[in-house]
Amino acid sequence: MLSTSDTFKVEIQTAIDFKTKPPGSLGRIEELAVQIAALKETLSPQMDTCQHIIFAADHGIATEGVSAFPQAVTQQMVLNFLGNGAAANVFANRLDIPVMVVDAGVAGDPIVSEGLTSRRMGAGTDSFLSGPAMTAATMENTIAAGAALVAECGADAMSFGEMGIGNTATASMLIHKLTGIDLETLTGRGTGLDDEGLNRKVEVLKKAASRTNDLSADEVLAEYGGFEILMMAGAMIAAAEARKVVLVDGFIATAAALVALTRAPHIRPAMVFSHLSEEAGHITVLHHLEAKPILNLGLRLGEGTGALLAWPLVRASVDMLNNMATFADAGISGKEE
Amino acid sequence: MLSTSDTFKVEIQTAIDFKTKPPGSLGRIEELAVQIAALKETLSPQMDTCQHIIFAADHGIATEGVSAFPQAVTQQMVLNFLGNGAAANVFANRLDIPVMVVDAGVAGDPIVSEGLTSRRMGAGTDSFLSGPAMTAATMENTIAAGAALVAECGADAMSFGEMGIGNTATASMLIHKLTGIDLETLTGRGTGLDDEGLNRKVEVLKKAASRTNDLSADEVLAEYGGFEILMMAGAMIAAAEARKVVLVDGFIATAAALVALTRAPHIRPAMVFSHLSEEAGHITVLHHLEAKPILNLGLRLGEGTGALLAWPLVRASVDMLNNMATFADAGISGKEE
Repeated sequence: MLSTSDTFKVEIQTAIDFKTKPPGSLGRIEELAVQIAALKETLSPQMDTCQHIIFAADHGIATEGVSAFPQAVTQQMVLNFLGNGAAANVFANRLDIPVMVVDAGVAGDPIVSEGLTSRRMGAGTDSFLSGPAMTAATMENTIAAGAALVAECGADAMSFGEMGIGNTATASMLIHKLTGIDLETLTGRGTGLDDEGLNRKVEVLKKAASRTNDLSADEVLAEYGGFEILMMAGAMIAAAEARKVVLVDGFIATAAALVALTRAPHIRPAMVFSHLSEEAGHITVLHHLEAKPILNLGLRLGEGTGALLAWPLVRASVDMLNNMATFADAGISGKEE
Repeated sequence: MLSTSDTFKVEIQTAIDFKTKPPGSLGRIEELAVQIAALKETLSPQMDTCQHIIFAADHGIATEGVSAFPQAVTQQMVLNFLGNGAAANVFANRLDIPVMVVDAGVAGDPIVSEGLTSRRMGAGTDSFLSGPAMTAATMENTIAAGAALVAECGADAMSFGEMGIGNTATASMLIHKLTGIDLETLTGRGTGLDDEGLNRKVEVLKKAASRTNDLSADEVLAEYGGFEILMMAGAMIAAAEARKVVLVDGFIATAAALVALTRAPHIRPAMVFSHLSEEAGHITVLHHLEAKPILNLGLRLGEGTGALLAWPLVRASVDMLNNMATFADAGISGKEE
């Protein structure tokens, strides 16, 4: 549905080759421009605005000792986002990107704050160590809620972030069950587990994985869940179908992208993979998705920070296409034969 | 002279570790923040403005068939910079970075244009295949002219670009003579030589290299010259000594950085290596300088385009230090023991 004819892609590349620079000399910036012009179906795409959404939720599995930080941090960080103090806020502020903060299911009492967008699917998921994280109906509602949020956004691009203590564990499980990649490869230190903590995390996940088999993709999502991951996946699908650029952040956002692609494989052309995370399993999932990240900065924070940092490069690629002079405009000699 | 006490560096890292994120989770962004706070000698450095300077000049060696484009392109591109049509203009405009265009010695008649900064050291260098590119006096004047230009700039950071048909050949020669790295490793396709052209370029450079030996560093600069490279080196030294961040672009700018460091080794702490270029020799020189580039986008354009694209990341690193909440500010729980 988002596919573009090869003829139009050649037309875009030709327009880029007429610009006053040696052919191909802007590397990845040119590739991005081709991707975005194809997505937007025009040689002069608009790429002025980006909307950032941070989805926050808690994970029953966090009570099994799979994270270096206590679960209370999810709620505390939501307040930090609302107070404009987190890394994602700081990066977004500089780039004039509005930040929407969504409670997709944070543990404890609902947070009362005017700035918060509440789409609570529960007070955290149930622990998937002993049973399903959520029901099939909740899973569908979560994805639909994400899609509905995007319908209200007018931006040219969307970047998505997440917050949820324990969510690297959930992301590893989802990827494992959806791709078959083994849990050792997919499991990392999250916010900073030591060796012992990492071993415990792998053991917990293996035990939880052994509980089920031969699940359909939709069954995997309900079984191993993660409200913020599924809601982000729904938002990615809706954004892509509206031909918005979808800036994919790190490991957890890439798990959401995988979920989104499982349900809507046709949206792949909208996805821009912003960076390679330090989280151990990220490179493997990116390979699986044949995705080439733009940045490699050793980030492992989440909140969509890597997606925000990649935004100026996305915009630069489109500016190149829209605003650079051509050889003819500038009266510049071509390559010597 | 720009060195910082280890105690202060620890103080900066501690300030970063108090920010609301797992320690180290912003990777290279944290490293940049430490470097810049150390350079600026404050825990709250200012990093709001950047000034871009493009140095343009011609090279006698270009007449020996070492470039895919004719020499006339240097002057044509200067007019393109002045007309706001080049990639560097487009990237700088979006980031509100002013662009100064300097004629450091373009071939032909002097360009008459109000917007141009003229610091002509000649109508291109002499070909270093048969004799020195410039005199020792011109070499010193060229470096001094670059330094003088920076004295007029008030920006927190400086990014430097270049334009000069044939200047990858000059850069390879300078690096070869200053470091001893062999010419095969250092010589690349520039704006797009084919295999035959690349072989010819290596042969020309080997012949030119064999003409001299046991030169002092200063003798190397005059012998193999490059007005724009030496003027950029002078500008880098002056900018660094004023404790401005020096954003180093690709292969040719890194040659200028090497020249600058040869004359002023103490300025290394000011240099931020913005990207890894596609030009073959770049990775080798970066290793030689123990420099870790921020971006890897397959760029090989010059004009300082990579430096400009890295600027938002430099600014983000300082914004993180200045504007992120601390765990105490935000009342957030620490790591579990």
